Amino acid sequence: MIDYSRYDRVRAVRWEGDALHLLDQRRLPLEEVMIRCEDAQAVVAAIANLTVRGAPAIGIAAAYGVVLAARTKADAFGRVNADAIAGELATLRASRPTAVNLFWALNRMGEVLRAAGSVAALESAAIAIEREDLSANRRMGSLGAALIAPDSGVLTHCNTGSLATAGFGTALGVIRAGVAEGRISRVFHTETRPWLQGTRLTAWELLKDGIEAHLIADSAAAHLLASGKVQWVIVGADRIAANGDTANKIGTLQLAVLARHFGVRFMVVAPRSTVDMGTASGADIPIELRDPAEMLNFAGTRVAAEGVQALNPVFDVAPAELIDAIVTELGTITAPDRDRMAASFA
Amino acid sequence: MIDYSRYDRVRAVRWEGDALHLLDQRRLPLEEVMIRCEDAQAVVAAIANLTVRGAPAIGIAAAYGVVLAARTKADAFGRVNADAIAGELATLRASRPTAVNLFWALNRMGEVLRAAGSVAALESAAIAIEREDLSANRRMGSLGAALIAPDSGVLTHCNTGSLATAGFGTALGVIRAGVAEGRISRVFHTETRPWLQGTRLTAWELLKDGIEAHLIADSAAAHLLASGKVQWVIVGADRIAANGDTANKIGTLQLAVLARHFGVRFMVVAPRSTVDMGTASGADIPIELRDPAEMLNFAGTRVAAEGVQALNPVFDVAPAELIDAIVTELGTITAPDRDRMAASFA
Repeated sequence: MIDYSRYDRVRAVRWEGDALHLLDQRRLPLEEVMIRCEDAQAVVAAIANLTVRGAPAIGIAAAYGVVLAARTKADAFGRVNADAIAGELATLRASRPTAVNLFWALNRMGEVLRAAGSVAALESAAIAIEREDLSANRRMGSLGAALIAPDSGVLTHCNTGSLATAGFGTALGVIRAGVAEGRISRVFHTETRPWLQGTRLTAWELLKDGIEAHLIADSAAAHLLASGKVQWVIVGADRIAANGDTANKIGTLQLAVLARHFGVRFMVVAPRSTVDMGTASGADIPIELRDPAEMLNFAGTRVAAEGVQALNPVFDVAPAELIDAIVTELGTITAPDRDRMAASFA
Repeated sequence: MIDYSRYDRVRAVRWEGDALHLLDQRRLPLEEVMIRCEDAQAVVAAIANLTVRGAPAIGIAAAYGVVLAARTKADAFGRVNADAIAGELATLRASRPTAVNLFWALNRMGEVLRAAGSVAALESAAIAIEREDLSANRRMGSLGAALIAPDSGVLTHCNTGSLATAGFGTALGVIRAGVAEGRISRVFHTETRPWLQGTRLTAWELLKDGIEAHLIADSAAAHLLASGKVQWVIVGADRIAANGDTANKIGTLQLAVLARHFGVRFMVVAPRSTVDMGTASGADIPIELRDPAEMLNFAGTRVAAEGVQALNPVFDVAPAELIDAIVTELGTITAPDRDRMAASFA
């Protein structure tokens, strides 16, 4: 068993018993500031305004948001009625539309709420969701790295690391594991417009762990893949449909098409909670359109003329036929399709 | 004959007899400032620091740079010896490496210098280069628009408009013509990282001409092309090799691969002076690597952590087999290859 801990130094979500502390990802890497959320509404705001982002981290934060909501409505014995926090649950559910981990975590908390109805049980469930995520990420790291031949180069997109999860990361966890195991010799990552998760977050995380990497413009991926320096494109997921179609950060579809064109392999890494067997295909996944202002301003500075119009879809869908492997903590599905997905996740 | 002038209001290069005036493209769209270049060295700096950019505009600016160099070294009769300005010519030639129009314009000016040896002849030649470019662009606009079916959508990349040329533009000229002719119903353009030529320049030009358009992130092109809203991707070129391989702004290769994948057609629009029959294929085109700082900072604000490394290639090469049409002022070459290129440009 290889010790990955040397490459796992960052934590973005911290539960401290009375409040949820979140590393403010809007201000990274220039400032490392923790935001303290004392009630569910603060958690909703943190999810919606991207203080916390990344599909698994959103789910974990929402679970703790339920604990905070329950605490304010509990009786003297720490018991809480499901109806009393239905409003908070609905608000948490509406905070982001695409990542399914949010709904998965809220459903799981809802079951505990109805079954046990106590703050203590909810807190235990939220802690379990967080711990299971970290453990799933280490397992996925090992499974994904096993697919990578020695001396490979990898390209990743967005941030799928410790900042996006309970720790270690999904796609970035595979990269951490691949580096630790000596399989990966070259790491490239995109900047990931418009929010620059790659430039700001992935680069920062990799620096913290001492993993050498190079940043490229999103549009330079084709030039890089054509060079032969990259053997795997490795990305996370916000929702994986029942046929293997995968919604992830805008730009993922481009990378999947380019990888196939240039003979590079394409790996999706996400926990089981990202798989949504209730969504038949990618066409059924709602794609979040965010404020065009995110495209018209850059680091607080206006960059477009007044009157310029922008479209800002923040996710797209890579079809299953362009995906070589989907890695979850349950195992690896190669050449995913409806049948192989059903065999693993029915 | 359709009057395109309603859609042609911007000029970025202005020769005023005693100096070259350049609209400072680093400061657009927030400020509209003209930079006055009184000698060749000022023109070299303006080309290298992107005050003026766009392959044809670089060639025109360099031609006027030769006039300014000749003027300082001319005798009382306005005659100049080629050796006297050899240093300035070499410096102009070294100002940018990829766009061949620069070398083409300097070669043409060099011939006039050796043949006529007068400032007046050089000034006439530079004015001719500028006028011919404008006229070529209008011709290409008409030829390119003729390929586009009514009610089409188009996607363009970078800035290939009046700001990149003597006026009207290459790829953006085709879009202007297509809009004027009522063929184009939907215009999309990328932001074009890292320099945001799309967000800052193309959006500004189109606003000036009253052409409705939508900006997308570079990485959103696949999502857009998959939607069926775009029938043609239309780009300019910095150098077209003898086999039709085309070097252009980083991200062009990605668009060519995506267009083919999604059944969208791909058009390259550039003047004859961009065709370099002396370069056998795209593999022989030098690709400029610019300062990684362009990726790590924005508008004076640091966006990456200290220590982050970036790669910043600013051009890539779309292979001829992914190009459906190359449009120059001499005509249209469909499915370009070595033989068809030779037949047109031998």
